[in-house]
Amino acid sequence: MNIKVIQVGEKILGKNEDKAAENKKRLDAQKILTINIMSSPGAGKTSLIMATIKQLSKKYKIAVIEGDVASSVDAEKVSAVGIPVVQINTGGGCHLDAFMVEDGLNNLPLPNIDLLFIENVGNLICPNAYLLGEEVRLMISSTPEGDDKPYKYPAMFADSDVVILNKTDLQPHLDFNEKAFRKVVDGLNPDVILFPVSCKTGAGMQEWFDWLEGKIKEKKNK
Amino acid sequence: MNIKVIQVGEKILGKNEDKAAENKKRLDAQKILTINIMSSPGAGKTSLIMATIKQLSKKYKIAVIEGDVASSVDAEKVSAVGIPVVQINTGGGCHLDAFMVEDGLNNLPLPNIDLLFIENVGNLICPNAYLLGEEVRLMISSTPEGDDKPYKYPAMFADSDVVILNKTDLQPHLDFNEKAFRKVVDGLNPDVILFPVSCKTGAGMQEWFDWLEGKIKEKKNK
Repeated sequence: MNIKVIQVGEKILGKNEDKAAENKKRLDAQKILTINIMSSPGAGKTSLIMATIKQLSKKYKIAVIEGDVASSVDAEKVSAVGIPVVQINTGGGCHLDAFMVEDGLNNLPLPNIDLLFIENVGNLICPNAYLLGEEVRLMISSTPEGDDKPYKYPAMFADSDVVILNKTDLQPHLDFNEKAFRKVVDGLNPDVILFPVSCKTGAGMQEWFDWLEGKIKEKKNK
Repeated sequence: MNIKVIQVGEKILGKNEDKAAENKKRLDAQKILTINIMSSPGAGKTSLIMATIKQLSKKYKIAVIEGDVASSVDAEKVSAVGIPVVQINTGGGCHLDAFMVEDGLNNLPLPNIDLLFIENVGNLICPNAYLLGEEVRLMISSTPEGDDKPYKYPAMFADSDVVILNKTDLQPHLDFNEKAFRKVVDGLNPDVILFPVSCKTGAGMQEWFDWLEGKIKEKKNK
C-alpha cells in the first residue's frame, strides 16, 4: 500500500515535469523571461514584484501569475497598476504546479509580454519540487526570519538561481549575521546570485533591476 | 486514477486521526499538557519554547518534540538547557503527523513530564490538517510577516486555540496594523486567545506564562 502511494507521487511529479517542459517551450517561443518567485509567507514576494513593476514597466511589458491558498489580495494590488494578472487559488494546496501555470498562460496575452513573474504560494518546503516552466528560480529570504534558514530549509536554497535577502532595513534591530547566512547559502549553492535589498527603502534594488534588465535583453536576443 | 489518489489521501488522514486520538489518550493518562506549535519559518517557535523553559522549568517538568525538514539546530538549543528533547526530521515532509509524534512519545520519559511542546515544521498551510494528539493548538504570527496573513492563510488561524503575535518590538519599524490583524483573526475564530509578545524583550510574556500555568494546573487537577 505504501509503495502504491509513492508510485502515484512519482507519476504526478513526472507528469508535472512534462507539463513544465511544455510551458517552457511555449514561453521560449514568445521570448518571455519567466521567474518563479518562492519564499516564506510575508518575506516580500509581492513587494519585490510591485517595486520591479514600478521601475521597469515603462520599458518592458510585464505580467503576473499570482498563486495563493486563498484570497486575491495580491492580484488586486498588481491589477490596480494596470498589469495583466491571473489569480490561482490552490484551495489548500501548498505549492503551484505546471498544470495550474498552464491555466494561467491560457489567460494571459503572451505575444505582449517580455517578463512574467509567477508568485508561488508562501512556503519554504514544497514549491521547489515542482517545475513550472520558468527560466529563473528566485527565492526571497527576509532578515527577521533569522540567519539559520538555509540550515533548516536547505533544498529551497540549493535549487534557486537567485536569492534575494529582503528587509535589510530591519537589520539594526535584529541579531541577523549576514556573513553566516552567506556562508551557508554559498556552501549549498556555489553558483547562486545573492542580492541584499530593502523593498521598503529601495536599498540594493538597483543591482537587482540591472541584473534583471540584462536577463530580459539576453532572452530577446536569443 | 485521480480518484485513487484522493482515496489514499483520505485514508491517510483518517488513519492519522485514529493515531492522534491514541496519542491523546496516552498523554491524558499521564496528565501531560501538550501544545502543538505552528508558524511560518522564523516566526519564533523555538524562541517561545526557550523563553518558556527559562521561566517555568523550575516549577514544571517540560519536554519537547522538535519537527524539522532537516537539521537538529533547535533540538540542540533545547538539549543544552537540560530539557528532554526528541528530534524528528521529516526528510522533505512539510508537516508532522501523529505517527511521527508516537515515535517521539516512545522516546520521552512520559511519567516525568507536565508540559510537552511539539514544535511543528515551519509552514502556514499543511500542519493544521494533521492532529497530533495535542490539547492546545497554538500558532505564532510575527509582525514582519505583515497584517494580511490571516486573509491569506485563513485555515491555520481558524483552527488554532491560541495565536501568539510575536516580534512586537519591531512594530515601530513596520507598517503593521494590529487592529486590522485582530479584526480578521477574531472574524475567523471568535474564541481565539491572542497574546501580543516580544520573545526578545519579554514584553507581554507574563500574560502568556500566567495563562499557560493555569492550563498546566487545570490538567493536573482533571
